[in-house]
Amino acid sequence: MRVYLDNNATTLVDPQVTACMEPFQTQVYGNPNSLHAFGSESHIDLNNAMEKIYAGIHAPKSDSIIITSCATESNNWVLKSIYFDYIMSGRKDHIIISEVEHPSIIAGARFLEKLGVKVTYLPINSEGIVTAQSVRDNITPKTALVSVMWANNETGAIFPVEEIGEICKEHDVLFHTDAVQAIGKIPVDVQSLNVDYLTFSAHKFHGPKGVGALYMKKGKELTPLLHGGEHMAGLRSGTLNVAGIIGMGKAMELAIDCLDFEMPDVEELRDKLEDALLKIKDTFVVTPREKRTRNTMLISFRGVEGESMLWDLNKAGIGASTGSACASVDLEANPVMEAIGADDDLAHTAIRFSLSRFTTEEEIDYTIGVVHEAVERLRGISSSYAYTPKNHESAL
Amino acid sequence: MRVYLDNNATTLVDPQVTACMEPFQTQVYGNPNSLHAFGSESHIDLNNAMEKIYAGIHAPKSDSIIITSCATESNNWVLKSIYFDYIMSGRKDHIIISEVEHPSIIAGARFLEKLGVKVTYLPINSEGIVTAQSVRDNITPKTALVSVMWANNETGAIFPVEEIGEICKEHDVLFHTDAVQAIGKIPVDVQSLNVDYLTFSAHKFHGPKGVGALYMKKGKELTPLLHGGEHMAGLRSGTLNVAGIIGMGKAMELAIDCLDFEMPDVEELRDKLEDALLKIKDTFVVTPREKRTRNTMLISFRGVEGESMLWDLNKAGIGASTGSACASVDLEANPVMEAIGADDDLAHTAIRFSLSRFTTEEEIDYTIGVVHEAVERLRGISSSYAYTPKNHESAL
Repeated sequence: MRVYLDNNATTLVDPQVTACMEPFQTQVYGNPNSLHAFGSESHIDLNNAMEKIYAGIHAPKSDSIIITSCATESNNWVLKSIYFDYIMSGRKDHIIISEVEHPSIIAGARFLEKLGVKVTYLPINSEGIVTAQSVRDNITPKTALVSVMWANNETGAIFPVEEIGEICKEHDVLFHTDAVQAIGKIPVDVQSLNVDYLTFSAHKFHGPKGVGALYMKKGKELTPLLHGGEHMAGLRSGTLNVAGIIGMGKAMELAIDCLDFEMPDVEELRDKLEDALLKIKDTFVVTPREKRTRNTMLISFRGVEGESMLWDLNKAGIGASTGSACASVDLEANPVMEAIGADDDLAHTAIRFSLSRFTTEEEIDYTIGVVHEAVERLRGISSSYAYTPKNHESAL
Repeated sequence: MRVYLDNNATTLVDPQVTACMEPFQTQVYGNPNSLHAFGSESHIDLNNAMEKIYAGIHAPKSDSIIITSCATESNNWVLKSIYFDYIMSGRKDHIIISEVEHPSIIAGARFLEKLGVKVTYLPINSEGIVTAQSVRDNITPKTALVSVMWANNETGAIFPVEEIGEICKEHDVLFHTDAVQAIGKIPVDVQSLNVDYLTFSAHKFHGPKGVGALYMKKGKELTPLLHGGEHMAGLRSGTLNVAGIIGMGKAMELAIDCLDFEMPDVEELRDKLEDALLKIKDTFVVTPREKRTRNTMLISFRGVEGESMLWDLNKAGIGASTGSACASVDLEANPVMEAIGADDDLAHTAIRFSLSRFTTEEEIDYTIGVVHEAVERLRGISSSYAYTPKNHESAL
């Protein structure tokens, strides 16, 4: 059996999405900027797709959603253009992000530090959450931007973006949120809170890879990251990825439709998996269930190194991860585990399971069995776990 | 009949390319950065695709080809990172580009001017070509970069990149070329000349939209434009567009295969069209044929406004353009026509026909008939053309 439980890294493209995209490669292939019919014949479908994307985050037409190539581009755009538009002139000199932002925000902020920008990295609390109070405590008159994600990729922890947005508004500070892990999992309504910029990406909600977006509130336009022609109102140049945009539109429509109907089932399956795994002793889940997205669980089995567990899971056909795919090749300790103050042993034991609407109960039942066996096997050969005599009792 | 003659704007995706891409949406969909089999199962195909891309431009393995989202991203990356890496420190303060670069280079350079960078815009000569001498004349000890395209999008004019590369080497100046219009039309061998950075894009050679690349010579790495995880050796972050990269690989392989076998046919058809249209009096083609890419012709019919001609062509099912699709919505005079010193009347009359390996002789014969009729009709109602009594003779 093959079981894909790494949907926070990327997702299967919904076959309905690929079906929508297909005509826009070999049949309707014109450049939408061209004046002839080969160019204009995609306009209605492009407009429909954009309407679905606007509707998906409840953005009014007066605001802008600019299609990019990925969330990493959207995040880099915000950071770098805030630098050019607000910091380079000397007006402001400070930004605030959290310690657990996506690598594109962390690495972007480190780059800005080299340019002289002051960066505050907010810690998470023991529940894995960035508090609104920590934002308030760190804003200064020179703060240009707060960038805090909506939902965490590792734990699924939902951050208090509504309160953070209010605090930013109160202090006249721009607020960006990376909502990559929120779209399709929880309702995202840009009108329900004060948010100036919001990042998302199609491949996290069963759309194609290579298509992201940046929402911008009316009046909050940024210097382009990609200068050029007049594409996307001059804000992001480059020939439109027609098939990709149409795919993102369909994926957004399906994701929103599933919020009410399929996501409760996903949550039920996640809870079934979690309940069964928590029966294994010395096992911990980060962030209380009600404060998480419905598909995600970051779980630690004391004495079981994350990579070893991944290996056993992989041999059994199950795909999970020790953390963000964007940082997975370097085999470092999970940054969230470090941030919540886990000891060294525990910091290397976290495994993330992230489900999707394509996950079945049969797959979850199978996974439960495989994990139980893996924990028993790995604790049996674990040097760190064996040191405590009480652990020599059955691991289950 | 529908005839697509706007292949310099974008191209039909070759059905062989879409067939290669298809499994990488709903079947092999893992994030290649993930450690499990869902992630690694695309690695062989990704490597094969990258090998085809390297082979396509004769890049040695020790050099880097970084996949981006489009040529506009690649071009912006070069300009902005040259700024951060060489200019911001005060070491250098000057770049040289041509007046007829793609809008992403022109607009990028204008942005750098706002940051204090000095930019020289090289003119083209009466053949539509940037001379190597003009590059030599403008290099100063403070010049950081020369960016001159390999082949022009409007006229097909092939620029003397080999000589320009030599001059740059002589003066220790970095050389970037936008080769978007060269790949698949003429041989591109990065080892045959001195080039540090080279831009290209899949959708210009029957690959998918949304996938570009930047070649970098060994030792000439740039600060990333998109910071983040460790994708692409840390030089360009963002989840890999797996299907897109595999599509680009296949498209490159086909394009190179066609250089010897199909491009001569394309050239023959282009020449047939050109010979037939030049029989219309008061008609001019920019750039001598032997100095152009094989698929392109920029032709002016005195007294016939470009947009009117496009309209007539479009009604007959033919897609052509007045210039770059990236600048087509603003209906300005063709910049190349302006640059070669055409008078105001002529500057608005240019029509670009760009063929591909999918163009048929039947389509060209049909187009010849339609253009002849259109010129006759439009000159008949042209105010500018009618002023000269001699023009009242038959327009043909």
